[in-house]
Amino acid sequence: MSNEPRIRIERGPLTESSHRVHIAVVDGGGRMIAHAGDPYRVTFARSAAKPIQAVPVIEAGARERFGLTGEQIALLCASHNGEPEHVAAAADILSRIGLSDEALRCGPHYPYHEPSADRMKRAGERPTRLHNNCSGKHAGMLALARLLDASPDGYMEPGHPVQRAMLAAVADMSGVPADRIPLGTDGCGVPVFGLPLDRLAFAFATLARPDRLDAGRADACRTIADAIRRHPHYIAGTDRFDTRLVQATGGRLIGKMGAEGVFALASQAEGAALAVKIEDGSLRALYPAVVEALIQLEWIGPDERDALAPFHRPPVRNWSGDEVGAVVPDFRLL
Amino acid sequence: MSNEPRIRIERGPLTESSHRVHIAVVDGGGRMIAHAGDPYRVTFARSAAKPIQAVPVIEAGARERFGLTGEQIALLCASHNGEPEHVAAAADILSRIGLSDEALRCGPHYPYHEPSADRMKRAGERPTRLHNNCSGKHAGMLALARLLDASPDGYMEPGHPVQRAMLAAVADMSGVPADRIPLGTDGCGVPVFGLPLDRLAFAFATLARPDRLDAGRADACRTIADAIRRHPHYIAGTDRFDTRLVQATGGRLIGKMGAEGVFALASQAEGAALAVKIEDGSLRALYPAVVEALIQLEWIGPDERDALAPFHRPPVRNWSGDEVGAVVPDFRLL
Repeated sequence: MSNEPRIRIERGPLTESSHRVHIAVVDGGGRMIAHAGDPYRVTFARSAAKPIQAVPVIEAGARERFGLTGEQIALLCASHNGEPEHVAAAADILSRIGLSDEALRCGPHYPYHEPSADRMKRAGERPTRLHNNCSGKHAGMLALARLLDASPDGYMEPGHPVQRAMLAAVADMSGVPADRIPLGTDGCGVPVFGLPLDRLAFAFATLARPDRLDAGRADACRTIADAIRRHPHYIAGTDRFDTRLVQATGGRLIGKMGAEGVFALASQAEGAALAVKIEDGSLRALYPAVVEALIQLEWIGPDERDALAPFHRPPVRNWSGDEVGAVVPDFRLL
Repeated sequence: MSNEPRIRIERGPLTESSHRVHIAVVDGGGRMIAHAGDPYRVTFARSAAKPIQAVPVIEAGARERFGLTGEQIALLCASHNGEPEHVAAAADILSRIGLSDEALRCGPHYPYHEPSADRMKRAGERPTRLHNNCSGKHAGMLALARLLDASPDGYMEPGHPVQRAMLAAVADMSGVPADRIPLGTDGCGVPVFGLPLDRLAFAFATLARPDRLDAGRADACRTIADAIRRHPHYIAGTDRFDTRLVQATGGRLIGKMGAEGVFALASQAEGAALAVKIEDGSLRALYPAVVEALIQLEWIGPDERDALAPFHRPPVRNWSGDEVGAVVPDFRLL
């Protein structure tokens, strides 16, 4: 037990709770270079797959055909905060493809960004589908339907040409045959992809260094990675780790969280990537695990470590704001 | 791994996440009669200790001196929803002891009850300390300060007579010497008590059948258990498990949740009790674990099982409300 890779939640003299963590780190060829726990654990990539799912959209010509901006390309990959600029960008993508938010099939939820959500509640406003953190991804799916001359109806069904293209891209970039990828249904209604952690990491290594792919797909990868580097606010938002990671590293590292404690990250400099799964799905353990792994791998330097410190060992506070404990990563990459 | 007691989160064909669970079941003498995982695991009881912490308050004469109602005695034990009736009851306790909510030292937070919180946000109202889920416990502590002729100032400090009385009651009822109980600080600022799960369960067995205690303390236990049985809405609130458990079993079972995945429960009929800890602290795994244990112990019958079914294997839904998975208890009490 004490040797299991974990993130401990300390309170006073006790470890009150603990989260098991699994990590795979692979090089550009997909070879394991470090790990913790079970690096072959199969889990749904959830929203960590979004940058990969943006590839067929861009590859099919969405940028040229609809004139998408860099911010909007980043938003295709986002679990965004639902801040006004995110909502506006999603609405603009839909307008460019000749659709309205009525075409989105993601359910509405209040913005992740609490000040934005609270402002809406005070104003008596109900959230729309545009506020859903996945609205950029869904807008991208609708764009792809247009580009494939497919009906926008049913774009969430696994058999729809859009979803078949998503699965094919995930298979290509992860190196797992499409018929070996278990599918589930995401919070936003679309298929999610089950991958071993090392294969999810490999998909991100490919995104960062796509040379092995067909030229069109490789170009799409470069366009997407570049958009995330230039517009990190649009893949998450204010105070979010995914955004801060890109900002702190000047875009050398790009990463994406997914629900249920998933993270995938690529290092442009190393041509390598990692994937993390918190076994119980807890978000509070996720970023401490990612930052600790980056420190051990020496993928971030002292200044970057300082910039990401609030995510590394965050304090546990009581309702009055006093510090009563801490989140403490407790593992060693092997 | 597959044999470890756990609560699985299924999505489509995969177990997406899983939560390890530890359970101790003891008889009225504190002897272990069943367990899962590590029944001696030490964890903070958190709010599961509240019914025990109410004992010195009632024992000191709070009911007689201040004329507390049954609802208010239940509220002393509550992690309440912050619904209007909870807030009013907390305010009335304070008024009966000649204090205002200014005397409370728990930080403010919006009500747990989302419709109440949303209503306040729409009206532009800020939460007060009375809305804190622990305001009943804190009001009880202030009542005890009065009864002990101690200053209400500093009632949260471990050395204050109120907290010394709390620790002494926890020690007496759990059978763990006070100097062997590690202390931390709760979300609401007061000390929390570290206990092995079997000892936390024993404290609840004692609450339900207090015959071994001094007469005054035993009477306080009976008063408290009776108040929870008669007024279960006041220990939690609308749609909350703690309330439903009492309602579904006609008060034969009384239990209390605590933060970080803790639950303690006493069966009046069996003269026995159990305590549960979800290792990672997740609330979503807690009630499924408790209900599964009650089924295996045959402490609830078919009708009660039906009444508690929404807490046993709750579906996982997406933002549109469609069912995309389930929470599935996967353990066997030994």
